[in-house]
Amino acid sequence: MTPEPRVAGEQFVQSLSRGLSVITAFDAEHAAMTLSEVAVRTDLSRATARRFLHTLVELGYVRTDGRLFSLTPQVLRLGTAYLSGSGLPQIAQPHLERLSAELGESTSAAVLDGADIVYVARVATRRIMSVGITVGTRFPAYATSMGRVLLAGMTSDALDACLAATDLVALTPSTLHTPADLRAEVARVRENGWSFVDQELEQGLRSLAVPVTDPGGRVVAALNVSASMAAGDPADFVSAALPPLQAAAAAVSADLAHTA
Amino acid sequence: MTPEPRVAGEQFVQSLSRGLSVITAFDAEHAAMTLSEVAVRTDLSRATARRFLHTLVELGYVRTDGRLFSLTPQVLRLGTAYLSGSGLPQIAQPHLERLSAELGESTSAAVLDGADIVYVARVATRRIMSVGITVGTRFPAYATSMGRVLLAGMTSDALDACLAATDLVALTPSTLHTPADLRAEVARVRENGWSFVDQELEQGLRSLAVPVTDPGGRVVAALNVSASMAAGDPADFVSAALPPLQAAAAAVSADLAHTA
Repeated sequence: MTPEPRVAGEQFVQSLSRGLSVITAFDAEHAAMTLSEVAVRTDLSRATARRFLHTLVELGYVRTDGRLFSLTPQVLRLGTAYLSGSGLPQIAQPHLERLSAELGESTSAAVLDGADIVYVARVATRRIMSVGITVGTRFPAYATSMGRVLLAGMTSDALDACLAATDLVALTPSTLHTPADLRAEVARVRENGWSFVDQELEQGLRSLAVPVTDPGGRVVAALNVSASMAAGDPADFVSAALPPLQAAAAAVSADLAHTA
Repeated sequence: MTPEPRVAGEQFVQSLSRGLSVITAFDAEHAAMTLSEVAVRTDLSRATARRFLHTLVELGYVRTDGRLFSLTPQVLRLGTAYLSGSGLPQIAQPHLERLSAELGESTSAAVLDGADIVYVARVATRRIMSVGITVGTRFPAYATSMGRVLLAGMTSDALDACLAATDLVALTPSTLHTPADLRAEVARVRENGWSFVDQELEQGLRSLAVPVTDPGGRVVAALNVSASMAAGDPADFVSAALPPLQAAAAAVSADLAHTA
């Protein structure tokens, strides 16, 4: 008997895809779920969901009291594999700490994942946003200073595709949210080399970002300084924060080049 | 033809286990690997490793330049599923920020994963350790103040099993590293309700930790304050830091009870 002909997609391991979807089915609103709830949220049969859950329990990624299933901290090992592997968080952290101490404001580093920015390092001086930001927090790139710096590093085709794939909404009354406005703003950011966002992600919050580049000049990450409205005049904030922020980004870019 | 008889372990999805091992094969020393390197590190055949890598590329968790494979920030979504699901990081963060501002020192929250502590929240005031600590960082429980608080919450059988399964080594000249010494110290921690560790994880570093409990009194996490040796007399550090640290832990425990 001859082997079955190879079919397109045969290389795709569906079990892995399904298993990862079981992990990502858990979130703040679904921290503990029954088998049935997991099956519904992953669109798997109960029998299939049970096999994946029991495999994850056996591997230590999920625990159960017999009825409810929840993730264990071992899941963090998966995310940590990226964080320690990328090098960027470890390299950026001491520079962010110095910058935060100098300015007395919160500082962060983020990278692009699809149309979102993802925080990979952060030094928080105090709570200025309504939601907590930690490593792994995501925001839509178009409405953030770090996102616009990262979008400015794209080719215009890639930028168009990214904007087309994003649900552009006005998160505050100030949010730029049409493709034309965002393309114009991203062009300005590319020209200036920095992005200032004033209350477009959240009322009362301002943020200034600059790019981190690789030796080829490609934008690989962004650093920012964020401040509350109470910090005073926006122009004063930018003129005070921009030089030390640019110095920190240059130092991170140089350190990244040395480790590459 | 009748179906094959069911075999023990048939419920175990080997493809999921293998796929997760491909993700965790990446780390700081192996941030970008060839197919052959991944195959060696995961103990899979090249053909199998290729299928898993290409599946992860298709799902967006891995990228490749055709030769080298590396993780993408999308992997953080897996870890974030735990962080947002557990509730603890979001609940602890504002309390840690207040505590850090009050004491002028770094503060953290951690949970136990096997014999390790894993950081789930952190507010860093300045770099006092030789290695950077971020959410997801792991240390052996026996050598840390948060670890000893978490070990003190175990039954003595579970503690014995944990110590037996751990490679106990003297990380500094001061590290307690015999099962007898550690059992005695953990008993003291249980009695006192706090743990003070003076340069046992790293020279020059001191840390004080207390437990976070659930409404049933079970220890579910630990909070700490860490300081460098330069901060002065250890007894002064403990007497100054313990009351606000205990107040923060009580507040986190109360907030957790309200959200449960």
